[in-house]
Amino acid sequence: MTRSAPGSQDGSALHALLEGDRPRVERALDEIRARFLPELPTSLRDPVDYSLSTSGKRVRPLLFLAAYRAVAGHPADEVAPAVYRLACAIEIVHTYSLVHDDLPCMDDDDLRRGRPTVHRVYGESVAMIAGAALLPIAVQVMVHEAPGAGLGGQRMALLVRELCRAAGPVGMVGGQLLDLEGEASPVGPEALEAIHRAKTGALLTAALRLGAISGGADADSLDALSRYGDALGLAFQIADDILDVVGSAESLGKTAGRDEELSKASYPSLYGLDGARSLARARADEAKAALAGISSPELLALADYVVNRER
Amino acid sequence: MTRSAPGSQDGSALHALLEGDRPRVERALDEIRARFLPELPTSLRDPVDYSLSTSGKRVRPLLFLAAYRAVAGHPADEVAPAVYRLACAIEIVHTYSLVHDDLPCMDDDDLRRGRPTVHRVYGESVAMIAGAALLPIAVQVMVHEAPGAGLGGQRMALLVRELCRAAGPVGMVGGQLLDLEGEASPVGPEALEAIHRAKTGALLTAALRLGAISGGADADSLDALSRYGDALGLAFQIADDILDVVGSAESLGKTAGRDEELSKASYPSLYGLDGARSLARARADEAKAALAGISSPELLALADYVVNRER
Repeated sequence: MTRSAPGSQDGSALHALLEGDRPRVERALDEIRARFLPELPTSLRDPVDYSLSTSGKRVRPLLFLAAYRAVAGHPADEVAPAVYRLACAIEIVHTYSLVHDDLPCMDDDDLRRGRPTVHRVYGESVAMIAGAALLPIAVQVMVHEAPGAGLGGQRMALLVRELCRAAGPVGMVGGQLLDLEGEASPVGPEALEAIHRAKTGALLTAALRLGAISGGADADSLDALSRYGDALGLAFQIADDILDVVGSAESLGKTAGRDEELSKASYPSLYGLDGARSLARARADEAKAALAGISSPELLALADYVVNRER
Repeated sequence: MTRSAPGSQDGSALHALLEGDRPRVERALDEIRARFLPELPTSLRDPVDYSLSTSGKRVRPLLFLAAYRAVAGHPADEVAPAVYRLACAIEIVHTYSLVHDDLPCMDDDDLRRGRPTVHRVYGESVAMIAGAALLPIAVQVMVHEAPGAGLGGQRMALLVRELCRAAGPVGMVGGQLLDLEGEASPVGPEALEAIHRAKTGALLTAALRLGAISGGADADSLDALSRYGDALGLAFQIADDILDVVGSAESLGKTAGRDEELSKASYPSLYGLDGARSLARARADEAKAALAGISSPELLALADYVVNRER
């Protein structure tokens, strides 16, 4: 795989990322499963394996890797295997959030990534425990892989702090709570944005920041990538809301129409479908503009991808 | 507070630990709450605060501190405040396990540490999320406090790995699952020990290992403290099972007789009360024997304390 020339935003950079990097991410995830799962209690091994082995889009590791390359300047085939495994830590945290989101006491969903949800297969208690097992695994992956990725103790400390902050009460799990509250009472545009900033945005931005920190980013690049991540996260979520309305369970791999069923506020419910589409487009453009000082055809292409995707 | 003379196992070392260290641990926890809670979403701040502010025995931080001093040789009043906050990370993880253990889909309990359980006050979803928020907070506390405790990046990496391993699927959350399975099918002595090694033992041993690593332990001391922790953990759990039979909700601060109600295998159910008492005593002696090369009146006294305590 060769590096796309700067300025080539026509899909070739995206193609390289999706077709070249995604299989490497899957391989890295397989390596992590092979390393961490055998020592698990048998009855926990299966549900954890089940949750990790479904084929997701792997957007977060791809963001990590794109940010890493944007900063470190390596073409994909020069990136060390340990960096790919490091990139998977954030996917493991994301998987954890999906397992818990789908639980009966949360969104109570039956279908995820095209298969029955973990609690539908293994029961509620097991799903809760399997989800909870994923965060410590993710942190251990990070600590374990940092040296192989050329990162010293200080840099690793930054990574761990970043990951836990994004997964914690001011990030993902905080967002889950705001989301639940949003089901109970009417939510306006500002509150909706706050929910998504925490619930989806925190992990997407963390993926970029973790990749950038691993690649040795300076403060300016880190700041630019955070702004890119913030806008991208909102674009991503608006697109998700639109897909929930116009998509089918088959293409989505999860139950369609779930937001309306749960009376959740969503971008289409607040702005209409066309309004939501323009808003997604505007956020994607905002994301691209934030990259001004960073040459990354991949990140430019990803901003378009998240609003144009079909699942 | 002065340091107890080696050999004084008559309770003065324990008195110093409980009366001197416990208030410092409470103060450190207050500092952590003051630092981490204000930035939380309002609706998450209260349940997290509620879970952390109940007065527990704080056994795990006390073990951390005793191991730290056994290795580093400082008297209590020379131990840096950052070390006390570091010691609280494990208490935060322990609190997380209590919140989730009490959930309706787990042990479904109403009373904990003398107060209604988190889900009884705030509802099931909120309790699940508040519990999940505690692990990332604990890791962040560790990363944040390590430099002030004089620990560099490599040592901190060891701490984070140790904490997450103990909290994860081969430790605490793995033990929760084994525990649930034990309610569903008959459990013999070996399986019961495996459950408690994972569910209770992993965090108690981790408390000692974290304290020892923070204090700069060599491999031999770390090994001795691990063996001490393993035996102490079992002694602690046997005593817990006995208290569940002979104690009252008032003295325990949690529902008594819960094991029998849930048809859980317990040491008294497998060995009878007297048999369980001898077994607890034997494990406490085993713990003390493991300390052969380490001079720590506190740890010796703690081994007696865990089997003689009344709650």
